[in-house]
Amino acid sequence: MSGFDRFEHEAMAHALRLAERGLYTARPNPMVGCVIVRDGEVVGEGWHPRTGEPHAEVFALRQAGERARGATAYVTLEPCAHHGRTPPCADALVEAGVARVVAAMRDPFPRVDGAGFARLQAAGIAVASGLLEGQARELNRGFLSRIERGRPWLRVKLAASLDGRTAMASGESKWITGEAARADVQRWRARSAAILTGADTVLADDPALTVRLGDETAFVPPLRVVVDTRLRSLERGRVRDGAAPTLYLHAPDAVPPAGLAAEFAAVPLRDGRVDLDAALRLLGERGLNEVQVEAGPALCGALLRAGLVDELLLYQAPLLLGDAARPLFAGLGIAAMAERRSLRLVEEARLGEDLRLLLRPLP
Amino acid sequence: MSGFDRFEHEAMAHALRLAERGLYTARPNPMVGCVIVRDGEVVGEGWHPRTGEPHAEVFALRQAGERARGATAYVTLEPCAHHGRTPPCADALVEAGVARVVAAMRDPFPRVDGAGFARLQAAGIAVASGLLEGQARELNRGFLSRIERGRPWLRVKLAASLDGRTAMASGESKWITGEAARADVQRWRARSAAILTGADTVLADDPALTVRLGDETAFVPPLRVVVDTRLRSLERGRVRDGAAPTLYLHAPDAVPPAGLAAEFAAVPLRDGRVDLDAALRLLGERGLNEVQVEAGPALCGALLRAGLVDELLLYQAPLLLGDAARPLFAGLGIAAMAERRSLRLVEEARLGEDLRLLLRPLP
Repeated sequence: MSGFDRFEHEAMAHALRLAERGLYTARPNPMVGCVIVRDGEVVGEGWHPRTGEPHAEVFALRQAGERARGATAYVTLEPCAHHGRTPPCADALVEAGVARVVAAMRDPFPRVDGAGFARLQAAGIAVASGLLEGQARELNRGFLSRIERGRPWLRVKLAASLDGRTAMASGESKWITGEAARADVQRWRARSAAILTGADTVLADDPALTVRLGDETAFVPPLRVVVDTRLRSLERGRVRDGAAPTLYLHAPDAVPPAGLAAEFAAVPLRDGRVDLDAALRLLGERGLNEVQVEAGPALCGALLRAGLVDELLLYQAPLLLGDAARPLFAGLGIAAMAERRSLRLVEEARLGEDLRLLLRPLP
Repeated sequence: MSGFDRFEHEAMAHALRLAERGLYTARPNPMVGCVIVRDGEVVGEGWHPRTGEPHAEVFALRQAGERARGATAYVTLEPCAHHGRTPPCADALVEAGVARVVAAMRDPFPRVDGAGFARLQAAGIAVASGLLEGQARELNRGFLSRIERGRPWLRVKLAASLDGRTAMASGESKWITGEAARADVQRWRARSAAILTGADTVLADDPALTVRLGDETAFVPPLRVVVDTRLRSLERGRVRDGAAPTLYLHAPDAVPPAGLAAEFAAVPLRDGRVDLDAALRLLGERGLNEVQVEAGPALCGALLRAGLVDELLLYQAPLLLGDAARPLFAGLGIAAMAERRSLRLVEEARLGEDLRLLLRPLP
């Protein structure tokens, strides 16, 4: 989409930064930012902080007041047109007398999906869309995955040595990466709607899978999801410690015991194990946008084999653990170079002595 | 070492860049650069291009001519004091009437080792040393290793997937990394005095192990070294194709056949295989500064286990090859995290889709 000038790009970039302030709290809603500009001056800005609270446009309009009349509103997502928990933002923009709305992208949510733009246009407001759409899609990739594909965006987080090992053969893995990398993991957890693991990891490590940011930053505690076909990890209880909700996904014929502080959901089986595609659809129906997997090589390998991994967050420590140590992914069944799995390196960063690589599988 | 001002740092940095022009050709000599400055103006510069040709100081003095009188000479290594293939540089500096010599470091070569400085001082020239010594040592780490430790600087080059695999189980490995990374490897080969491999790699891949820079850059072809205890890889001949010299290192009781276009050297055994430490001492005695290992996991693992690896040049491709594929290093014998091998990440670079990591083992 062309026709936007440098000033407009800057206004939308600013709106995207505002939207990102909802990273740890807006879910299951999308992150949205809004900047209102009149005569080249920013007269209002806002973002959506949390479900149930007003949308970005409302905050920005409140700040702009009378100055919104004849102004341009830059929004990172099409304004809503339906009565949800809050009245439609399109109506608020109309009432405020905004002259033009520039959106980064259309909202694919079925109750919006063009209806917001139509409402604005019907009121005589000029509408444009597509400014920094790529960045807007990247920001809300979790929300978009859930709405467009019916399942959360799945991120597999792994910490490995240079020789691609995540733990000793014994399971020992404390610690492969340094403090900076481990603190960074907490931030990626905080943006996730759920942390997903498997029964083997729960049995071996008894992880809490909670978020520890180390400061007062607000976040919504992610759901802890344990894929446990036979419910064989229940003896380990830190994952049900009450600090965040917990959900076990199990076989239809496995019977959850009463009295545990957790939810249980039966998922159809595939080859004798919880069908991972069905499991993710179930999580999508529950409104989860981003799911972060922190599990062992078997579950990570199964997710990759099933084509369900959207990104790999790989922390790499400058260590060698040797060829007896545990692999990143088990059971990929690759026998020839032609069958290799290619990824795209999206981003690299150095954290202390470690590297963080963000990668996405190529089709 | 303090007391050097910004101008002097810049002069020495320039001398180091000049020295580096000998990267592919100066060996077995050290790379040396020289900058002559009078009244704040560079009046002469030079570097040592190649064994048998004049040293850096001589080129710089020639360019400076009469302007060398009363000038300061910045040299990246202590000027020589002995008659080698060329007359002593210390004498040349004295004759030219230089007033002051600043060196990055003392030359540990036994026939210099302070004698150059002494000669200059005896002639009334002011001498200082230690300016950018770290960079000078880094540049000549191969030469310094040979002189100070009696063995070449050993670099292990590996190309691997994200999951730390260098080839399929079948041995297939073409290609893990992309073109930019493979071209970069050629430049690291060109700076090496030798490329070292093992019998298994020769048998499996029949590699030529020559330098292909793709342009007219001059280089001295590195020696090709095959560690082959039992001389079982002789049926494969590309490594003896005449494009560069070839040396087989074998057991004392293995008898080299006559008529092959290669040298053979017997090395004592250790646990039934060529003693790698003895092999490297032999290569050091032959004047090899940097040796680049391009071998399979067994030989790379044995070198690492023996504490002989000075740096790891790891090309990492955004691929997964699976846990049946070949490891980086075999037989490290690590059973617990406490036994992990830690490295220091010296440098990272992106080459096309791949990453290049330069790492050095921590003590």
